[in-house]
Amino acid sequence: MAKAKKRNPVILITNDDGITAPGIKALIESVEGLGKIVVVAPDKPQSGMGHAITIGNPLRLYPVHIFKGIEAWQCSGTPVDCVKLAVDKILHHKPDLCLSGINHGANHSINVIYSGTMSAAVEAAIESIPSVGFSSLDYDQEADLGAPRKYARQIVENLLNNPLDKHLILNVNFPAVPASKMKGLRICRQAYAKYEEDFVERVDPNGRKYYWLTGKFVNFDKGKDTDVWALENNYVSVVPVQFDLTNYVLKAKIEKAWDI
Amino acid sequence: MAKAKKRNPVILITNDDGITAPGIKALIESVEGLGKIVVVAPDKPQSGMGHAITIGNPLRLYPVHIFKGIEAWQCSGTPVDCVKLAVDKILHHKPDLCLSGINHGANHSINVIYSGTMSAAVEAAIESIPSVGFSSLDYDQEADLGAPRKYARQIVENLLNNPLDKHLILNVNFPAVPASKMKGLRICRQAYAKYEEDFVERVDPNGRKYYWLTGKFVNFDKGKDTDVWALENNYVSVVPVQFDLTNYVLKAKIEKAWDI
Repeated sequence: MAKAKKRNPVILITNDDGITAPGIKALIESVEGLGKIVVVAPDKPQSGMGHAITIGNPLRLYPVHIFKGIEAWQCSGTPVDCVKLAVDKILHHKPDLCLSGINHGANHSINVIYSGTMSAAVEAAIESIPSVGFSSLDYDQEADLGAPRKYARQIVENLLNNPLDKHLILNVNFPAVPASKMKGLRICRQAYAKYEEDFVERVDPNGRKYYWLTGKFVNFDKGKDTDVWALENNYVSVVPVQFDLTNYVLKAKIEKAWDI
Repeated sequence: MAKAKKRNPVILITNDDGITAPGIKALIESVEGLGKIVVVAPDKPQSGMGHAITIGNPLRLYPVHIFKGIEAWQCSGTPVDCVKLAVDKILHHKPDLCLSGINHGANHSINVIYSGTMSAAVEAAIESIPSVGFSSLDYDQEADLGAPRKYARQIVENLLNNPLDKHLILNVNFPAVPASKMKGLRICRQAYAKYEEDFVERVDPNGRKYYWLTGKFVNFDKGKDTDVWALENNYVSVVPVQFDLTNYVLKAKIEKAWDI
């Protein structure tokens, strides 16, 4: 890791709200001066895209000049496509760090699975690029991201000095409270919380039904070591994430239960 | 679980190749007679959609009559949308089991993250519906799915008799070999294997570049307990999957490394 300290580290930045979202600008500003920043982000909002990749269609990639002095590209694909294309066609080598966000909306607990922001971070880590996804529980696009900016810089400085693991992924969420009320970082586990769906049914002018996805977020997990608890108590939640989805407990159970 | 045995269990079937794919027909045939089958599947191929959900657009849902004597619906959304809509608007309660597939193509190792087939299964398990995703390494849509059908039925019978866990998810992959060469089921962990991307660059008639995602699958994991090893040795791989993405090892490491 001494190598990363000597030269200027390369930081890839992406998001899922699209390249014009205030959150990505805040993230760029928060880490300016810490390395060479390259931005590759979707050309339109891609919330809820999870780990989708574009298989049946080609991708477009255009340079944009919207961040002063920063190389930036907009991509027609998903957040995961952005990371793949950035490494293969723009950077031509692995960056030192990949940052995703700052997302306008929560990505704590089960949201990590639906989130394009977090999936971009997961994709980077699969590629052996340590990564962090940042999200604010404040859905207001005009929200003050001053405090998230400060914490994001602190986390990135920590990781550039001590990268810990090439497959590192952190899911960082900021509570929707003023800076003065934020109590600092708290390392957490992912809560078991989920959405209870309630599709809204409507009828179009031709008499055909259609459905809008809506849902109520319900937390089934009372643990004080969870991200949901941390955020409810005004902490910045930090959940280390993995892409080995093997359920080892269930594996042992099945090996015992099934006679194979 | 005695309850599930007394009444006719409800089995929800979906996939990501779309409702007209041969694989879903094979899966329906494989479990006929084991319960009441309801099919809700995408109206078009949705490979590589991962855990994407449809947020900014409404969804359509139409009954189709293509499987004799089986209630079936085609949905305009992603595989995950199909599961959500099926539970909320068609079944109105949780089915006993959700099956996804049989996918035309591999979903072993890291593919589990990109796969719409597996994401539908994961979504069901989040909803406390035990689920299994089935995939064949044979990409040929006309492939003989006789052996996969037999194994799928065996697994489903096992789970209906002994459901093991309401959050159970199994990622089952079949090697692309004739039935006579398949060596039986093997419980595995997810291999660390991934795609090395190599986008193909082309130029459109207007002189603008576009990119096609291609990649070489590379296995970095030499473990004999992995799904990749099992499949290379003609076993049917069964990986138990989880949706708690917390990396507990990294969590402990960060708690030590960071002074917070």
